[in-house]
Amino acid sequence: MTRQQLFENIKSKRSFLCVGLDTDITLIPKHLLKTEDPIFEFNKQIIDATKDLCVAYKPNIAFYESQGHAGWLSLEKTISYINQNCKNMFTIADAKRGDIGNTSKMYAQAFFEKMNFDSITVAPYMGEDSVVPFLDYKNKWVILLALTSNKGASDFQFLETVSPVEGNKGMVFKNVLEISKKWGTADNMMYVVGATKADMLTEIRKIVPDSFLLIPGVGAQGGSLQEVVKNGMNKQCGLLVNSTRSIIYASNKEDFADKAREEALLLQKEMQVLLDKCL
Amino acid sequence: MTRQQLFENIKSKRSFLCVGLDTDITLIPKHLLKTEDPIFEFNKQIIDATKDLCVAYKPNIAFYESQGHAGWLSLEKTISYINQNCKNMFTIADAKRGDIGNTSKMYAQAFFEKMNFDSITVAPYMGEDSVVPFLDYKNKWVILLALTSNKGASDFQFLETVSPVEGNKGMVFKNVLEISKKWGTADNMMYVVGATKADMLTEIRKIVPDSFLLIPGVGAQGGSLQEVVKNGMNKQCGLLVNSTRSIIYASNKEDFADKAREEALLLQKEMQVLLDKCL
Repeated sequence: MTRQQLFENIKSKRSFLCVGLDTDITLIPKHLLKTEDPIFEFNKQIIDATKDLCVAYKPNIAFYESQGHAGWLSLEKTISYINQNCKNMFTIADAKRGDIGNTSKMYAQAFFEKMNFDSITVAPYMGEDSVVPFLDYKNKWVILLALTSNKGASDFQFLETVSPVEGNKGMVFKNVLEISKKWGTADNMMYVVGATKADMLTEIRKIVPDSFLLIPGVGAQGGSLQEVVKNGMNKQCGLLVNSTRSIIYASNKEDFADKAREEALLLQKEMQVLLDKCL
Repeated sequence: MTRQQLFENIKSKRSFLCVGLDTDITLIPKHLLKTEDPIFEFNKQIIDATKDLCVAYKPNIAFYESQGHAGWLSLEKTISYINQNCKNMFTIADAKRGDIGNTSKMYAQAFFEKMNFDSITVAPYMGEDSVVPFLDYKNKWVILLALTSNKGASDFQFLETVSPVEGNKGMVFKNVLEISKKWGTADNMMYVVGATKADMLTEIRKIVPDSFLLIPGVGAQGGSLQEVVKNGMNKQCGLLVNSTRSIIYASNKEDFADKAREEALLLQKEMQVLLDKCL
């Protein structure tokens, strides 16, 4: 998917919502456990109930791996179901991968060829040659970790650096933005910025004004949607705001899909107002 | 496996060799493609041919994921084969994972419970709460990326920092060592240090004198075993030196396992001399 296509989808759906599919076998409604593939069945119903309200789905790969090769199969069925049943849906493999060049190439094969995701989250620690193999695919995206939403973000991402980049008071996450933006463009790289760090968005926008940002941490983790929009929205929206637990686990009974839709609708309505005001 | 057990294995096998199982379906001998699971068949024969010469096996997970759920099954069969057929073998899931707490927990489940690996490589960018879920398992290990062997290592790992740690001229990778060593102990944390950065080992040993170091990059990537030992060995050896391509792809014909053994034997002999001299 291109940046322009993503923006068109945001405008037509009046939403920049990404729904996280962190499907945990211990948290899904019990009645699904009787089905052949409970994880896929759960995802399928969540997708059917929310696909007109969101512009992206983001399965976190850890939840599938924890179920071994059967979980991997549920993941393959999920991405294939999205690609076949949702028009113009952006898909994110939340995998946080990254390895030396020939190995990152294998990860790119796994997520872009074998499964046909639009994008993958990548960890920056190993530098350029761990990231560029993902950028070799046309209309596919790297979403690089910049500033994450968790407590541990402060351990290394905020380390003060003797800045190699003129004009930016050094901090590791800013160096990540400055250095990595030379590897690709706003047409094939996005960044993860936690909503719990919304006050940093103004500074981040100075470094990557045009890039889309994937924003986790709204809802369960405590981030504010309005703050995120105020500091982070650009002319093409430039935001994908992810919500997971408050949507997919809104109910653990037979009505889980309806309740998920209700929660997604609340967010979409809020986004619609913000989009109307800002774009 | 405990640190003492690992050391005993090194002494009795007179080897600190780790064999990388980065099994690439396009590089393995053609005659194996007729078998039901070529990747597992290849691994099985490599393992049978080298298990008395090495103390660890390290499958890189990317190579299995690139084959989808079938590849994941080959990985499960491989770790299970090692655990059943190799006495006292240390196993490393080279996965370079790391995510927010509840997600890292899922990765820990995947690699420590579902597959029973002894250890997993973890990327440090997301900080403490992305690493500790792996440390909750008794006699299991985190192998944290500190200084990697690739070119891109210089992008962020060598960024100069305004050191938060007294006495250490700041650099991101040193901060990673200093800060992370408080999360665990030398009994449950190791570090990845590329052999291509062997001159840094002396300084690294000042920060983590007792920790085992996993050293990739000897052989195909150009690192020197003697340099690594000179600067990095400690009283319990403290080194696992990995070699992959020069061993497993020593031949792409029917004799591949014999040739792999020959290459592994050369390294083991060299290690034996170095161990006799240093321990």
